[in-house]
Amino acid sequence: MITAREVIQKKRDREALTQQEIASFIRGYTSSQIADYQVAAWLMAVYLNGMTLDETRSLTREMRDSGTVLNLSSIGGQKIDKHSTGGVGDKTSMMVAPIAAACGVTVPMITGRALGHTGGTLDKLESIPGFNARPSPERILEILKSAGAVIMGQTDDLAPADRRIYALRDVTATVESIPLITASILSKKLAEGLDGLVMDVKTGSGAFMPTLKLATALSRSIVDVCRAMKTKIVVLITDMEQPLGRAIGNALEIRECIEFLNGRTPEDLETVTIALAAHMIRLGGLARSIDHASKLACEAVSTGEAAKRFRQIIAAQGGDERVMDNLDLLPRAANTQAFRTATTGFVVRCDAKSLGLASNALGAGRNRVEDSIDPAVGIYLEKKPGDRVLKGDVLCQIHWNDKNRLTRALPLIEQAFEVKARPARRRPLIHAILKG
Amino acid sequence: MITAREVIQKKRDREALTQQEIASFIRGYTSSQIADYQVAAWLMAVYLNGMTLDETRSLTREMRDSGTVLNLSSIGGQKIDKHSTGGVGDKTSMMVAPIAAACGVTVPMITGRALGHTGGTLDKLESIPGFNARPSPERILEILKSAGAVIMGQTDDLAPADRRIYALRDVTATVESIPLITASILSKKLAEGLDGLVMDVKTGSGAFMPTLKLATALSRSIVDVCRAMKTKIVVLITDMEQPLGRAIGNALEIRECIEFLNGRTPEDLETVTIALAAHMIRLGGLARSIDHASKLACEAVSTGEAAKRFRQIIAAQGGDERVMDNLDLLPRAANTQAFRTATTGFVVRCDAKSLGLASNALGAGRNRVEDSIDPAVGIYLEKKPGDRVLKGDVLCQIHWNDKNRLTRALPLIEQAFEVKARPARRRPLIHAILKG
Repeated sequence: MITAREVIQKKRDREALTQQEIASFIRGYTSSQIADYQVAAWLMAVYLNGMTLDETRSLTREMRDSGTVLNLSSIGGQKIDKHSTGGVGDKTSMMVAPIAAACGVTVPMITGRALGHTGGTLDKLESIPGFNARPSPERILEILKSAGAVIMGQTDDLAPADRRIYALRDVTATVESIPLITASILSKKLAEGLDGLVMDVKTGSGAFMPTLKLATALSRSIVDVCRAMKTKIVVLITDMEQPLGRAIGNALEIRECIEFLNGRTPEDLETVTIALAAHMIRLGGLARSIDHASKLACEAVSTGEAAKRFRQIIAAQGGDERVMDNLDLLPRAANTQAFRTATTGFVVRCDAKSLGLASNALGAGRNRVEDSIDPAVGIYLEKKPGDRVLKGDVLCQIHWNDKNRLTRALPLIEQAFEVKARPARRRPLIHAILKG
Repeated sequence: MITAREVIQKKRDREALTQQEIASFIRGYTSSQIADYQVAAWLMAVYLNGMTLDETRSLTREMRDSGTVLNLSSIGGQKIDKHSTGGVGDKTSMMVAPIAAACGVTVPMITGRALGHTGGTLDKLESIPGFNARPSPERILEILKSAGAVIMGQTDDLAPADRRIYALRDVTATVESIPLITASILSKKLAEGLDGLVMDVKTGSGAFMPTLKLATALSRSIVDVCRAMKTKIVVLITDMEQPLGRAIGNALEIRECIEFLNGRTPEDLETVTIALAAHMIRLGGLARSIDHASKLACEAVSTGEAAKRFRQIIAAQGGDERVMDNLDLLPRAANTQAFRTATTGFVVRCDAKSLGLASNALGAGRNRVEDSIDPAVGIYLEKKPGDRVLKGDVLCQIHWNDKNRLTRALPLIEQAFEVKARPARRRPLIHAILKG
């Protein structure tokens, strides 16, 4: 039996750990026989020396098996989820789940909360009065059978090893490690009992992996581990240099989702949402080709079937479904303030990270897990890169409730926008697609 | 004010930390504002990414200043200590302290206990009936004034940061790091209020730094930090491929020391002891040259002055000084057993590490800090590399008290010796000398 110190030492010396060694280390940690400080030293060794595919797979499996793995075998058809590495204004989950469900896919979606400059799907959904992100296990099965999709928070018994290790990574500067990120994401996703996963790996200033190189490395790692674990996988690397869509902030984003499902669709949001939904439909075996799947996804929106599904999901999870017809039922900030351009020209930059931090400063996000959020505040972009503006035009509307917070947000918003005489080259919305 | 996470991140990213950053990190740890797991991650980053001279110096200074720094200004003359990285049969401290004191040097020697396969000076001294390794601060000054040397254990208020960090390194596989070893050794030594230090860095199978390359790197680091901290330094890199002298084990080594000071001197032990003592005498400004210093050291032994000093030290620290005349007052094992060679030829190997582990197995050492030791057991080498032996000749005498322990020690002793038809090339006793 190898000791904790020997496991640390092997990784320190760039040797690959066996499945048994990783299992005994992770089990030792979750059973409190291995101390935080030993795992912390090991995490730094992994950060600096990396992991092989076999090691990453073993770590993913051990972390998944540290808790309950959902058993969805009583539900027919393919169980497919979509997961994003997180971005600013990224509200696609709330649209792809009902679209894919409308096309026959079963979507057991487990999602998270806002942290740092990125938003969280659960916080957004909770701006719908009454919405319950924690249905009981029996209720989850009922909702999946009736609505085809459920969007819920992580339970305590889902990959608990990941929760403890993530907390440790956060305070030991070992978050940004490709094998550790891979294992963290996939241990939770694979505990959902999925047949397939569509991953949205964001790249750009507002993304966790700012460069395309890092995003590609993470995507490859995710594809490799999913393949090794016999789970169907497609990764889309999508752009997060600017926010996705126009709304940033919880209720503002729900509003945009409902408008989208009701037929009003900003172009970038539509492109990414339909692409993600189409890959879910294709992985679910419900279309002959990706073009066919895209067509089905678009039809689910245009026929109103996706909106109907979203209404069902909201109602089934205790939310006030009338928000689908009456957006005024969503929380609204007490004040709005226009932010205007001082120059005439073209918007060339509308920086995702700065706007995410600004939204956070307004109260829409969290700096620490225990912070509470204000569902009403946020930013609505009137102009985006490529748009022509005249001096004095409104670039965005700021929805605010607290003057001090507004004061903190303004310089970040100022910093986010750049207007120049000539338009800049447009970045692609989808940088790459990798398949398992 | 930089956070703990930012300090870890900088080191993770191979950036050099400033003095202020290291100070705030170490002070945060000793005041329990920074957690063990953060320091553990940082130690692994230091292990893998190294430290600059400035960083090592800052760490040494902070660790030294985490506790009390001895004030020996009331004692005239130069305060010089000798320190060894630890070896098997390394009993030079008990000889160089009285020799240097006999030549006029003041030696405030703080030393440690056995751990792993290496012996500890304190454990050896405590095999002298009554010996007290913890005199009071007032008594230390008195002994230094009367005997010229004191040999004592580390007090709780001497570099306490090092004690905590060392315990953490031990369980996180971050011990073998040159900057961390440098800071650990020098923080304690410089807390003695020294004018100069002679370091004995061991190299070979029984040493902490087995290869000459590693021993040289550690030696350079020690010289550089001492020079930067304005402390006179000489480092001797000496051999630890075979044990030093003939005795291994606590009382057996004291016996060999007394015999040495009384004029019976194994060649290798004499060479290393006189060299170390001579450099202490030279650093203390009491000789014109190193040749002159060596002559003074030899004279201190031959005139009996060094033996007289050792008697004074023993008496002043509460020990039974009669051991100097009657070695039978030292603890003796109940049994001895001869270990014989099965072949005729030349001893070509007498492995320090195996013999250290064998002595440990007999009960002379510790595997964990809290283990107790048996002062009487050990090994006395009748033959050493280069010696011609006939089949059946005694290679060593095993002094033992516990049959089970003897059984565990025997295969290690068997493994340690090699006899071949032709003698092997002799390794030098002193590989290199570096000066500050």
